[in-house]
Amino acid sequence: MHIQVISSVNEARGDDLQHKTVIVIDVLRATSTILKAIDSGCMQLIPVETVNQAKNMQRPGELLGGERFCKKIPGFDFGNSPLEYTSDRVEGKSIILTTTNGTRAIQKSSKAAHVLIGSLLNARTCARKAAALSEDVVILCAGTQDMFALEDGLCAGLIVEELLKLEADGWPRRSSAAGTDAVTIDDFGLSMLLAYRHARDNLEEALLSSSNGKRLKKIGFHEDIVYCAQVNVLEYAPIVRNGRLEAEMPLHR
Amino acid sequence: MHIQVISSVNEARGDDLQHKTVIVIDVLRATSTILKAIDSGCMQLIPVETVNQAKNMQRPGELLGGERFCKKIPGFDFGNSPLEYTSDRVEGKSIILTTTNGTRAIQKSSKAAHVLIGSLLNARTCARKAAALSEDVVILCAGTQDMFALEDGLCAGLIVEELLKLEADGWPRRSSAAGTDAVTIDDFGLSMLLAYRHARDNLEEALLSSSNGKRLKKIGFHEDIVYCAQVNVLEYAPIVRNGRLEAEMPLHR
Repeated sequence: MHIQVISSVNEARGDDLQHKTVIVIDVLRATSTILKAIDSGCMQLIPVETVNQAKNMQRPGELLGGERFCKKIPGFDFGNSPLEYTSDRVEGKSIILTTTNGTRAIQKSSKAAHVLIGSLLNARTCARKAAALSEDVVILCAGTQDMFALEDGLCAGLIVEELLKLEADGWPRRSSAAGTDAVTIDDFGLSMLLAYRHARDNLEEALLSSSNGKRLKKIGFHEDIVYCAQVNVLEYAPIVRNGRLEAEMPLHR
Repeated sequence: MHIQVISSVNEARGDDLQHKTVIVIDVLRATSTILKAIDSGCMQLIPVETVNQAKNMQRPGELLGGERFCKKIPGFDFGNSPLEYTSDRVEGKSIILTTTNGTRAIQKSSKAAHVLIGSLLNARTCARKAAALSEDVVILCAGTQDMFALEDGLCAGLIVEELLKLEADGWPRRSSAAGTDAVTIDDFGLSMLLAYRHARDNLEEALLSSSNGKRLKKIGFHEDIVYCAQVNVLEYAPIVRNGRLEAEMPLHR
């Protein structure tokens, strides 16, 4: 299995993602929010690129979530804070979500064989699912406005670490259809692995030192960062199919 | 002082480098080779982009150095191995150098206020000179064929570390013309700093794990990697002026 890490959405070439399992990461906050919504019992999540798409697509009973410039969109039911997506508000619901970078990364991955939603919260489960899917893996860091975001890179490093642990346990070998036994990692992935290993005991601090972390803290979302910095606390690895994430699909092994 | 780290040559926009001090890094091997040549007494180094430029520019007594696909160019005096640039061959000489990525990064930096040549070998001196020049700093990792190269990223992390040490000692503050006291670092620079801190005691091993390291070892250049993995052993921070590096300029403080 070859693992490639892409630093931001605009670095991703659609054709390079073909026949790959793409793990989309937007730690602060889109993919963490998607996972929190699923954990709270949300039935279906539809990521779309624009505010108008979200409004035009909405059918009775469906809720709208998302942000522009880190803030809730006027008229929407939710912003992009994972802590808003509580069971009492989302259980059994269908939510249309639009965020600046995360949903764009999901759209960009449409040519991939499989698209998984990853964050620090579900890194281990995500790695397991990716290994079971038996394709080469591309970890796509959403980044922020076409720039690399530290928190996404650290999450990529954690997922690489989890894939290496699975390799050490002999697991990808058993399930590999591609016939390549050894895990190989591109240079950017190696650098993110090293960065993660250095920051692993202080991830919350690292997230707070990032550009997005500072901005979110400044506008009152410190608790979001604390939530999103948790590692391997959720056992879902949602797959995007036909542009949707559905809770009834098998979400973990 | 703001520090930005750029992951590879094709990520650099000429206009973004204006009014900045750019540190060009190509650890394996162009910038390490330039430093070795200067250490061996080379009088003048002229980096050019193409093989033809090098040949057309050559005047009597000038030597040609460089590589394509990691190998010496036919008819040239030197390849791109730093260990070839010994005192008995380069002392007092003028050398025209063309490499695949390193010299291209130098050319791309032509709009910068200052261009320094950096590598692991001279990271501390390079940081000192950059701080003394009192501009914001861009660390430009040359990379390999438009891709990020691990060894350049680790060197960028080391230079960030050295700049932070200078800040802790109060040095950039004294010399800052820009009037910004605190050092700020972009997210990519922060991730390279973390990666460097994790790998600092095993840099040779990290270089050997990189894509370029593996390739160079395979074709017989293991000793080059051992040489290039040394930290802060040279006290030159050459500046590119009018497309040339000249040894008679003050090379260190």
